[in-house]
Amino acid sequence: MDHIRRTERLAAMTQMLVRSPNKNLALSVFCDAFETAKSTASEDLDIVRTAMKRFSLGSLETLPGAAGGVRYRPLVPRDQALAEVRALCERLGNAGRVLPGGLLFMADVLGDTATLTRMGEVLASEYYEAEPDFVVTMETQGIPLAMMTARALNVPMVIARRSVKAYEGAAVHITYPVGHSYETMSLPRRMVREGQRALIVDDVLRTGGTLAGLRSLMNEFAVTVVGAAVMMATEEAYRSAPQTRPLAVMEGVDERTGSALLRPGDWLAS
Amino acid sequence: MDHIRRTERLAAMTQMLVRSPNKNLALSVFCDAFETAKSTASEDLDIVRTAMKRFSLGSLETLPGAAGGVRYRPLVPRDQALAEVRALCERLGNAGRVLPGGLLFMADVLGDTATLTRMGEVLASEYYEAEPDFVVTMETQGIPLAMMTARALNVPMVIARRSVKAYEGAAVHITYPVGHSYETMSLPRRMVREGQRALIVDDVLRTGGTLAGLRSLMNEFAVTVVGAAVMMATEEAYRSAPQTRPLAVMEGVDERTGSALLRPGDWLAS
Repeated sequence: MDHIRRTERLAAMTQMLVRSPNKNLALSVFCDAFETAKSTASEDLDIVRTAMKRFSLGSLETLPGAAGGVRYRPLVPRDQALAEVRALCERLGNAGRVLPGGLLFMADVLGDTATLTRMGEVLASEYYEAEPDFVVTMETQGIPLAMMTARALNVPMVIARRSVKAYEGAAVHITYPVGHSYETMSLPRRMVREGQRALIVDDVLRTGGTLAGLRSLMNEFAVTVVGAAVMMATEEAYRSAPQTRPLAVMEGVDERTGSALLRPGDWLAS
Repeated sequence: MDHIRRTERLAAMTQMLVRSPNKNLALSVFCDAFETAKSTASEDLDIVRTAMKRFSLGSLETLPGAAGGVRYRPLVPRDQALAEVRALCERLGNAGRVLPGGLLFMADVLGDTATLTRMGEVLASEYYEAEPDFVVTMETQGIPLAMMTARALNVPMVIARRSVKAYEGAAVHITYPVGHSYETMSLPRRMVREGQRALIVDDVLRTGGTLAGLRSLMNEFAVTVVGAAVMMATEEAYRSAPQTRPLAVMEGVDERTGSALLRPGDWLAS
């Protein structure tokens, strides 16, 4: 291989770190890829670390010891997170989005991969310290945000289903109350191990039924729930579950204009 | 701001490009972020381009004209794609994964965000030239791969539902045959516009019913289908739909050991 310039090496190293959020990469990975000494690779990583910090693009952490290395976390500074969630709130409040019954049309936002990637990073920034082993969600609309949060955390995403599917093998199945009725939820036994830590991510918090169901399901697996976050909560539901972290809180809807008033979750402003 | 070293600028520029696959970034974005002249930013981008190419980490393309700029595509070289899909096939064939009836347990792989990110890049690499406007999938298990493919393509993901939901507004609803029975599929009217181009991504191709249903649904919206890809196809289904691109093809299962034999889709080997 021709002589590798430091500038090129830095670009390549940054790509390798950024494409794998929260993944521990040993120093030897870089030494092997770029045929360089550990001291040189370390110096390069210092430059990447400084650059990420200076431009608020995330953090590069060095892990000591035999299993040591570096990992990149797409940490979103609180002020940036707040500004981006404000933009999301405005978009979700747009005229024409309110459906009959005061429901909010969100399928387009939940399919917007760039926004979802970023919102996943906002939520992951909040839960890195809690060290969840996986993100759990309830099908269907919760999946995109759960997926992107799990990606930023570098943990698996686990989907609870409304009913047991033949292709999911043995499953744990629960019944939970929603309003005056009951719904069911199931999870394949082999997806989760006793003693793990779960982060719950869903699309909407309205009655609290689904979140309570997911907590109860995790309890059946002897899994600790380290937190719960949603794309949007109604003001009323948020008040009854203040420990939940909603990106957006819906204060009210105007069915006449089809618009809604939303604000960022209070945890983002603190 | 202190003087910014070129090395730091390169790391920051690479992060900005890699975190937004297939997004067109104007040169002025970099000039503003780093307070640098266009000529300097151009030189820096040349270095990033050379580095991505040299280490097979994707491609950086320059777009000319007023709307010009650069975009990063996480293009996976065919030999790398083949090696990674081979590893996926081995994992999917693992003893214990075959369920009663010869079904394959895949929920863990479909929740593995790192693998899914990479497989999304493999599929996107194949479909960049077809320029899809969105990726469409059928709930539930198709969503993770569809999401990551849409992310790499930088297009929205659209989810067809089994039934119309109140919170999705007016929807187009179709009935399609699966085996000797019929199933239903619906898509909110406001998710798709006439004349757009769709890429279909799903988890499994077994009977071909869901793919045919999605094609029929796209037809109702006057949308062109530019391709169809799945995580896994049975050998039989693949033979009847050779234009579909499966990552893995299941040649057979051994119900006694609970293992399966899979190979990469033939299109990957060509």
